[in-house]
This record gives sequence, C-alpha cells and structure tokens, in this order.
Amino acid sequence: MKKRQVIIIIGGNAAGAAAAAKAKRTEPLADVWLLEKSEFISTGTCELPYVISGEITDYQKLVFFTPEKFQDEKKVNVRVAHSVDFVDRKKKTIEVTDVYSGKTHQVSYDKLIFATGSQVNPLNGLTGEYDNLFKLKSVADLKLISDYFSSNVIKDAVILGAGYVGLELAESLLSRGIKVRLIEKAPYPFPTAEPEIRGILSKVIEKGGIDFIPNVQKYSFRMAENKISAIVEGSRVLESDVFFNCTGFVPNVSAAQASGLKIGAAGGISVNYYLQTSDPDIFAAGDCSESVEFITGNKMISNLATIAHEQGHLAGNNAVSINKNITAKIILNTSVRLFGSYLAQCGLSEEDAEKNGFKVNTVTEILPNLVPIMPDSGNTFIKLNYDKSSKRVLGASIWGGKEVSGYADIIQLFIRLKIPATELSGNYYNYTPTLSPFRNILSAIGRKIK
Amino acid sequence: MKKRQVIIIIGGNAAGAAAAAKAKRTEPLADVWLLEKSEFISTGTCELPYVISGEITDYQKLVFFTPEKFQDEKKVNVRVAHSVDFVDRKKKTIEVTDVYSGKTHQVSYDKLIFATGSQVNPLNGLTGEYDNLFKLKSVADLKLISDYFSSNVIKDAVILGAGYVGLELAESLLSRGIKVRLIEKAPYPFPTAEPEIRGILSKVIEKGGIDFIPNVQKYSFRMAENKISAIVEGSRVLESDVFFNCTGFVPNVSAAQASGLKIGAAGGISVNYYLQTSDPDIFAAGDCSESVEFITGNKMISNLATIAHEQGHLAGNNAVSINKNITAKIILNTSVRLFGSYLAQCGLSEEDAEKNGFKVNTVTEILPNLVPIMPDSGNTFIKLNYDKSSKRVLGASIWGGKEVSGYADIIQLFIRLKIPATELSGNYYNYTPTLSPFRNILSAIGRKIK
Repeated sequence: MKKRQVIIIIGGNAAGAAAAAKAKRTEPLADVWLLEKSEFISTGTCELPYVISGEITDYQKLVFFTPEKFQDEKKVNVRVAHSVDFVDRKKKTIEVTDVYSGKTHQVSYDKLIFATGSQVNPLNGLTGEYDNLFKLKSVADLKLISDYFSSNVIKDAVILGAGYVGLELAESLLSRGIKVRLIEKAPYPFPTAEPEIRGILSKVIEKGGIDFIPNVQKYSFRMAENKISAIVEGSRVLESDVFFNCTGFVPNVSAAQASGLKIGAAGGISVNYYLQTSDPDIFAAGDCSESVEFITGNKMISNLATIAHEQGHLAGNNAVSINKNITAKIILNTSVRLFGSYLAQCGLSEEDAEKNGFKVNTVTEILPNLVPIMPDSGNTFIKLNYDKSSKRVLGASIWGGKEVSGYADIIQLFIRLKIPATELSGNYYNYTPTLSPFRNILSAIGRKIK
Repeated sequence: MKKRQVIIIIGGNAAGAAAAAKAKRTEPLADVWLLEKSEFISTGTCELPYVISGEITDYQKLVFFTPEKFQDEKKVNVRVAHSVDFVDRKKKTIEVTDVYSGKTHQVSYDKLIFATGSQVNPLNGLTGEYDNLFKLKSVADLKLISDYFSSNVIKDAVILGAGYVGLELAESLLSRGIKVRLIEKAPYPFPTAEPEIRGILSKVIEKGGIDFIPNVQKYSFRMAENKISAIVEGSRVLESDVFFNCTGFVPNVSAAQASGLKIGAAGGISVNYYLQTSDPDIFAAGDCSESVEFITGNKMISNLATIAHEQGHLAGNNAVSINKNITAKIILNTSVRLFGSYLAQCGLSEEDAEKNGFKVNTVTEILPNLVPIMPDSGNTFIKLNYDKSSKRVLGASIWGGKEVSGYADIIQLFIRLKIPATELSGNYYNYTPTLSPFRNILSAIGRKIK
C-alpha cells in the first residue's frame, strides 16, 4: 500500500487556510496539517478597522472558520497555538512547539508550505511590550485593543504611520469620539500616493478632524510603568492614552531563514513561478514570500489578502500535484475609504514608473460622477500614467465615490491585456442619472492621450 | 467674398444642441441656426423621474441652457416655438412655422441636420388629449404634470408600460405616497430583461409596493369630460386619478418622410456612417435616425442621451467639414435604479443573440458585493452570454448595488475589443472591505467559461 503523503502548512490565515483546503481537495488521500501559532485561523484582516468603528459589531465575525469547523469541513488536521521555528530539510522534519507548554516534537513531512504571513514593523527604538501600545494586524490584536478600551477611558490616540491601516484606523477611532493624532515620518499622509492625491488627502484628513503631524522621524518614548505616556520628538511631547503602530509590514521569514531557505532581495522567501522555495519540497505563499510585479518584473512583497488567498490555493495544489499551475505576476489594485470618499490606486505611480526607466506621460481629469443636478453628485479625480511612446497604461489613481473601484478594475485590465491607453475613449460607458456620469472620466482621459 | 454657409439644425435637445454647438465651433464663419418646436432646448430627459420623486428639487434644473444663454455662449441662432414640417430639397429651403402665430416662412440652407428625436408611442385606440393623461418625455410634459399635481389631489396613478421609464416613474410616484398600478402588455415587468432578471424584478416590484398587472393587451378608456376615469379590460375596471403613457418611443420622422428622405426598416431616418441621409446635404442624428448595433450589425433606434449627444456632435462636425468623422456602431450599456438596487444591461440578451444566429452559452453567478460581514453587503447577480465556439462576449445583465455600472463597463470593453470571455478571470480586481468584494463575480464567471 502506498504511504499517505504528508503535507504541512505553517501559518493558518489567508494563504495557509487556502493552501490546506486546496491540497486536501486536490488529493483527498493526503494527510494535511495546518499549524498556526496564534489562537485563530482563517480570519479577516482588512476588516479589522471596522470592528473598531463598530460597523462590524463583533470581532468574532472576523473568524470565518474555527479550528474545529475547518477540520470538520475541510478534513484538514488543524493545530492552533503551535509554532514552527525550524525545518530539518535533510531529514524532512519540522520542529513543532506547543505555545502553552513549550514542549516540542518532530514531525515528518513530504511537502511543506510556508504561509507565515507578515508582521508589523518594530517601532523605532522600542523593545518590549506595553499595555497601551497596539498594532492592528490580527484578531488577537483586536482582542487586546477591545479589552483595553473596555476597561480604560480612552479620549486620545496617537497613530504612528499614515498608510492604509493608519488612515482607516484614524477614521474609525474618530467615529468613536476619540481625538486622533496621526504621525508620519514623510512630509505628507499616504506617502505611496501620487502628489496630486496627497493634496486631496491632506484636505480630507484635516476636514475630517484628524490632527496630522508630518516629518516625525527621530523620536523616543516616555514610559510610565508598563505604559507609554508620550512620544517625544525634540521639544515636542505628544501625550496620549493609547498608541498604535501602523508603520507597515515585514514578511515573517525567520523560520524559513533559520532553515536555510533563500531569502530574496525584497525581503521575502524566494520562490519560483510554482511557488517553490529554494528547496523543491517546500513552497511559500502570501505575505511571507516574494511576488513579481507585472509591469516592471520586480520582486515585491504583497500584503493583500486576495493575492495571499490565490497564492495559497496554488501552492496547495502544486504541493500535491507536481507543479500543475504557475503563479501570475501581480498588478496592485487597492482602495481605501476615507470620510465617505474612496481612493483607488492601480499599477505604478508616476514616480515608480520613472524609477523603473519608463518615459512617463501623465494626464489628469476631474469630472462629476453623476449629472451635477443629481443630489448625490460629487467629483471624480483621476491621474493616469502611460508610457510616452507605446501608450501602454502604467497606472492610475482615482479619488471619488464608489465608482472608483470599477474604474480601477478597467485600468488593471488595460495593464494586464496591454490595451493602449487611447482605447479608454470610444467606449460605451454606462449612463443613468442615479448611478453613472453622462461624461465618463475614463473616456475624457482617453481623448487626452497624445 | 465667400458667402457664409448656412447650417440649420431641426430639434434642440441632446443631438441638436450638440450638433449646433459643434458646427459653430468647427466653422466659426458659418451661420448656424437651431430650431426647436417646444419652449426648451438642451434639457435633461433621463432625469425627469427624479423631479417627480423630489430628488431634483426644481424642473428648471433640467434646463441646461436657456435659448438666450445658448445663443450667447455658443454663437448659434436659436428659435424656440418654431417647427419645421417640410424641406424643399431641390430649392434647399425649409418651411418654418411659428408655433404661436401659425405664420410660415421659407429659409435657405446649405446643410441641414435632423435632430427631431422621438416621441412616446400613441396609446392603444386613443386620439385627442386628456387633462389627466401624461407622458414623461420632456420638460414640457413635466410642467403639465407638476401643474396638475399641484391643483388636484392625487392618491392613485396608473402607469401603462413597465420599461425603464415606467419603472422609474412608478418608484418616484410611490415615494410621494401615491398608490401605483403598473400595467404591462407582456406577462412580466421589463420585457427586454433576461428571464432570470425578470424573476428578481418581480419580487422587488412587489416588495416595493407596486401593484403590477401583466398581460393587459386589449383595453379601452372610460372618459369623464376631458379626463380619463378608468382603463377597462374585459370585466376589470381600473379607476385612477392620473394615467401615464410609458409604452415606449418612436422616432420623429414625419418631416423627414414628407421631404422624401429615406426611412429605414427600423423606422428611423436612414443614414450612412457620416450620418448623411439619402440627401447628401442633409444629416440626421440621435433618436430620429437609425444606428447600427455593434455585435449584429443590425439597424436599430437608440433612445440614449449619450449616443444622441455623440451623434449630434459628429453630424455638426461633418456638416461643416465634409465628412471628417464616421459614427461608431453602438453597444447598449444601460442601467436603472429600483428601490435602492440597480440593474445594468450590456450588449445582447440570450434571446436576442439566438435570434441573430449565435450559438449562445450562458453562465450565471451570485456573490456578495462586499465581504458578508460588512453591514452594507448585498448580493450581485450576473448572467453572461457568450458565443459557444469563439467565446466572444455577447452581453450581460447585472443586478446588485452600485458595482453594476463598473462591471457593465468592463463587459462593453470585452465586447468592443473582442476580448475572449475567459479573460474575465485572472484579473486583479479591486478589493477593500468598504467598497469591493473579496471574490469578484466577473472573475468567478470567467472561470465558468468552457
């Protein structure tokens, strides 16, 4: 009788859960294990700010599968509170540690998948943990925040980092009546945004009531017992009830690195198109591994749940069916809501495109998103970047109402299928007074392409 | 000295106003005249139901240009309340009638543009006008409705015709607390919709409180003085305070026909790709003329303001610059709001595609438009039609939230650029919890294409 194949997945969130489920579905005879060092597998991450705002009423809604339910439905063996710090690649064993007892034991594998995700950047000069310093990366973090908020009076919060999470969190805290200061090391909010968008954002943030503090690079903390009482920058002392580290993410590669797997220049586990690491029996997927950006071919780290899910799926499949599928290059297509408006960003910014050697032409446009006489009408702003000679679309930023996601989806289609930017005009865009504009902004942009 | 060229445009709404402005802009030395038989030029039409609902507070907001302002800004001579019933093509003169005085005079032209639009179908067996029988086609109609509603108590309305206008009007009247019966000759509302959509619509209409009465084909009217008191169908008597004719539109071609211009099989003024009629010095644009449908190549009548505007623009340009541009084939991409949800339709329905000789494959999908734990999450439904062998996209219907217009825009792009339906998957669709779904429905549909 053929020995049952053992597939072990390290890390149980978007990529890991998808990998485990897919591996078992593809090869029902395989013995699939999902190991997770926290208490939770298969949770929502992008939704965390909306539990804080109260839009999602209960953090437990973010747990899509309990370990029991996953094990039951997916026929995958699940172990939470179990960490893996080392792989003996010669013996093909992993060392599993029970987080509570500290006991370790060895487990053999045939194929291994790293789906260890990412973690929040450690804060400038700060070691150790503090009762009122939080991050917003996991349901576990949310539990800590929730517990602290329910047993302390919180009137004032300081957020470090004005990227996606920092901005979403700032708005969520404000909606609870908490005063928010948003600290950023760059001179403006959302440093990855186009300069034209930063201008819009600055106004929206100010109008929304967020106190934005730019150019904070060197700072220290003032402590009081096991709490932080203030951030000190030169003569400025920013006292607050709570502090949030939203300074961005780094891939969790320590176990992979300790096991001798190759780490790439972008800082993630290096993988080929099959998502195989430098060890052909070990795969990696999601935030912990490197992806390839579509336009530039550059290695990059994605922190998107959709990409993690897709890569997990693929790694799970390839682990049991000998590299059946190859992973695709990534086009970033992200968005964020801020005070009732939305920003979508797709592809490369002008600066990024130039850095990568493109001769970039840029066009901008601003047009109503509904006929102006309709009561909900507002403006859409777009900046489109394209290659000067080939007219290839390189990227766009769009600010406005809910229309921005559809427009960004069209832009990614132009990028992926290499449709010339001129084809943005000549289309039959949707129009009805209650939903879509008479003059479509993509059409207007298309006519500006020279 | 060269004689100034005289360009006359008959009809002053979307197509006519665009034609006049463009002709003058292209050839500033031309003497451009815009003649309109009603009191208004350059008005919104699609927005009419939202004046009735009160979303647009004043019907005057629908008048984008007064005749004076248009004349002033566009340097076009404008005459309202002037109709044209006959063109002497040999002499190159038109007979213009002053609507109020009834006086007529002859005017010479070099180039003529018909932009006479369309009118509501005459009602089954009804000649003459009645105080409480209305249509919803123009600002003038809106004024009549507004006047009647302000001087009569309206508790109950009967709408004939359950297409776009009938449905939008029904919702608008309901929102004013008026009881609405919606009468349709077909067995279901929105007869042009896919059967799968009709099922959804029927439920939404019922839940919304519209009393839908299908299969009303032969009926008569009961009169009381200069009003209609009831519609009688067999033993059924539908009494009401007001009646609305929303049975659809026919092109206004009587003057063109009387002048010997060719009328096509679809019932509109026949034009070539330059929008020239059978007389090369006469052009036609908008609802009065025939267009060509993109997929089938069939002649059709469009009643869309966006198409009328674009064609007017082109006719105005060609009239003064010797056929510089050619008109494009049309892809229908329409939408309608109903009780907070939206329906977008793009391209051909399954039935239409089959009638036109396509071997049609159809796929449907239903998915949440946001992660289900988000409070505003609802479902999106899509039906996609594609050609069995070539995988060419033929059309789609999408029901859901505001996401439907972006999806319909993507579908029209697939149709226009002949992108195979399989390419709907493999894209990087936007995802963020507050705006866009984790699993994109177009991607799911793409994976179902066999």
